[in-house]
Amino acid sequence: MEYDREKLSEESISQILQLIEEKSYIKAREELLKYNEVDIAEILEDIMDVAGVDKTIILFRTLPKNISVEVFSYLDIEEQLKIINGITDKELHYIIEELPFDDMIDVLEELPANIVDKILEKSSKEERKLINTFLNYPENSAGSLMTPDYISLQKDMTVKEALAYIKKEGMDSETVYTCYVKDTGRKLIGIVSLRSLVISDDDVIVKDIMQTDFVYVNVLDDQEQVSNMFKKYGFLAMPVVDNENRIVGIITVDDILDIIDEETTEDFQKMVGVTVSTVEYLDMSVWTHVKNRFPWLLFLMVSLMITGMIIAQFETLLSKVIVLVAYLPLLMGTGGNSGSQSATLVIRGIAVGDILPRDAWRILWKELRISFLIGAGLSTLNFIKIMLLDGESAAIALTVCGAMLVIIMLAKTIGGMLPMLAKKLGIDPALMASPMIASLIDMISVITYFALASLILGI
Amino acid sequence: MEYDREKLSEESISQILQLIEEKSYIKAREELLKYNEVDIAEILEDIMDVAGVDKTIILFRTLPKNISVEVFSYLDIEEQLKIINGITDKELHYIIEELPFDDMIDVLEELPANIVDKILEKSSKEERKLINTFLNYPENSAGSLMTPDYISLQKDMTVKEALAYIKKEGMDSETVYTCYVKDTGRKLIGIVSLRSLVISDDDVIVKDIMQTDFVYVNVLDDQEQVSNMFKKYGFLAMPVVDNENRIVGIITVDDILDIIDEETTEDFQKMVGVTVSTVEYLDMSVWTHVKNRFPWLLFLMVSLMITGMIIAQFETLLSKVIVLVAYLPLLMGTGGNSGSQSATLVIRGIAVGDILPRDAWRILWKELRISFLIGAGLSTLNFIKIMLLDGESAAIALTVCGAMLVIIMLAKTIGGMLPMLAKKLGIDPALMASPMIASLIDMISVITYFALASLILGI
Repeated sequence: MEYDREKLSEESISQILQLIEEKSYIKAREELLKYNEVDIAEILEDIMDVAGVDKTIILFRTLPKNISVEVFSYLDIEEQLKIINGITDKELHYIIEELPFDDMIDVLEELPANIVDKILEKSSKEERKLINTFLNYPENSAGSLMTPDYISLQKDMTVKEALAYIKKEGMDSETVYTCYVKDTGRKLIGIVSLRSLVISDDDVIVKDIMQTDFVYVNVLDDQEQVSNMFKKYGFLAMPVVDNENRIVGIITVDDILDIIDEETTEDFQKMVGVTVSTVEYLDMSVWTHVKNRFPWLLFLMVSLMITGMIIAQFETLLSKVIVLVAYLPLLMGTGGNSGSQSATLVIRGIAVGDILPRDAWRILWKELRISFLIGAGLSTLNFIKIMLLDGESAAIALTVCGAMLVIIMLAKTIGGMLPMLAKKLGIDPALMASPMIASLIDMISVITYFALASLILGI
Repeated sequence: MEYDREKLSEESISQILQLIEEKSYIKAREELLKYNEVDIAEILEDIMDVAGVDKTIILFRTLPKNISVEVFSYLDIEEQLKIINGITDKELHYIIEELPFDDMIDVLEELPANIVDKILEKSSKEERKLINTFLNYPENSAGSLMTPDYISLQKDMTVKEALAYIKKEGMDSETVYTCYVKDTGRKLIGIVSLRSLVISDDDVIVKDIMQTDFVYVNVLDDQEQVSNMFKKYGFLAMPVVDNENRIVGIITVDDILDIIDEETTEDFQKMVGVTVSTVEYLDMSVWTHVKNRFPWLLFLMVSLMITGMIIAQFETLLSKVIVLVAYLPLLMGTGGNSGSQSATLVIRGIAVGDILPRDAWRILWKELRISFLIGAGLSTLNFIKIMLLDGESAAIALTVCGAMLVIIMLAKTIGGMLPMLAKKLGIDPALMASPMIASLIDMISVITYFALASLILGI
């Protein structure tokens, strides 16, 4: 079925909400079970917003056990934690046990240590050790994304034996479409796709069809690097190795789809001057919103104050030719907009891998030419407008338009080069975006404009 | 192997470039063949930049035929077209024939009609018809992304028969991991994963293990919608149906990874005021860059001019209290930055599906509270700074800080609501980002500031 979230909410959610109000949980459950697990999770999140946590938990507990686990795995972490607080220890233990390993780790990471200990009490010593290792991988690392549930094959197996093994183990594995071949020291020596197994004859040996020029990531690699590898190679899964090149887990492409969005959202937040957070806009408290935005506005305000102080230095000039003030927003604004264009295009180019550090001079040369053409064009139009429409003197028009050309050229070259410089220095280029560029350009604009005015007008 | 593009270029590319200069193409080819097809494509693109098209084509033609097709499929469309111009018709025909169907369509779409006709001359009538159908799907539609090469199973097949069929047909199919079951009218009635086939017993019937609550997209759905479905459900492939619900093709997740980046880049471009384009920054000519940026700057300039005209109305006020000018950038800048924060967070929330049209009032209420707290905080700090550091009168400090509170509150609520309004009106919310908000806020800032000044200072 083709689902539309807006439609879902209109048709079914209101019906389910009413059933809940009437305490007809069994009927509500029936309505819910018309959908697949992904949609049920989404509907439950909406219901939690409207009907509250308690009623949602009652509804959640009416779901068949196997479905409830899968639904749970698709909920956002905030909703998962709310559900956990409302179910019995026994139910929680069942869910945790049945969750795919990587989802389980995600949940455990967010729980208080004493609850985690209580859950792990019932696990075997070996399992506890494995879970603790996974819990210790740094946030946003390949280690924090991977699962240890993959299919390992022996290099001497026949295709028939391999398929029989997959049939036996496939149920508990995150994916069966890529299988891994290790040597005795747990070092990865090859990968075999299920496709090549299925299209090969029964007596072919695994080692003869395995790929040995495979690509892998290190357990400590950043998730952005990992997602770039997925994008580049188009894989369904990628092995993760430790520093001794032993395979410790795999990452599957479905988890990467979420990561790509997460990384992009981070870039947007950095580029606009907001502290990075993965919490959704509506789930974030007013107070956290303030905390994430205030420091950046304050920081940018300081630079705006400096611009103000520079203007104050030119008070005599301004009081003599007050009309200059009217063109100040035009120059600062156009400078900021020009710089933002260049900065954003370059930042994005770096993020998707189109632009490399060694391209710096090509960008400089390109922006110089682009900015000269744009600057000349806009200045000319402005000159005509100031002379004809505003009826100002040629000296004023010349001042404004001369300043505009210089400001646009400076804005675009600085806008293009700052992200490159940041990349070279190991700073995230996204931080060199609009507000940062605009603040810098503001200062440059004011100085250029008023200095040129003093010169041309002789004041 | 863990590849690093920067490293690749330093180590191998310079070596290959030297070998090409020495005309040792066979040795260059050997060096190249150490890498996998994705990397070879990337290296060839770099070599084309430095050594030129002709030498790159010679090198490309030395590659083994099967590898050259795959390498070709990983090249960007610009480089593909350059290669096409330098190879024989026979070679071109071979490549086109062997390319996966969706990649072939992408290439044919970019070629001039007479070349396409020449290529299709040798195809069968049926094939030509299919290709023409695919060429006619609108750009960015599901139809333009899909491939007709998928595995179709009969609902009455046993697992053994299904696996035998996959073994026979699997080589030419885009994916074998999801198979599709159609009724006699080509209507999709179920999907079967290879996983469930492999873990089922030989004599199980396909219809008993196929999923019937599958998700599909329409051939005319936008690619953004399609990629959102992939993100939501985590699928490896998704069926595409026509208006009669007949399956016409499938889309695989590896193609979606590229689409996600493309859609995000579009959002970045719109949000900063640049005409949308999929051409990479460095591949785009200076002239095209100018054409993509100039109109937006001009459009924004008009609103900046209006701001200037508003300022001109207050000339008497300003000439009497010239110090007001020094605080103008502070107010306009802080207003713009505050508005951009809210606008960007809301735009991103809409793009990833966290924020729905019906959330408008929740956002308004949230932004009102956030902006009041931030506005009050920043105004207080400013009041102290203006009184103590600048040594201005309380009236001036009150004017600036009062205006600041009002401007921040207006900026944030407008910044949060404009993208919601755009969404409701069917306009892309991304267009309501920083430069647009900043221009609007500029005008509001100037009016608020000077009106308040007139009032408080009594001028």
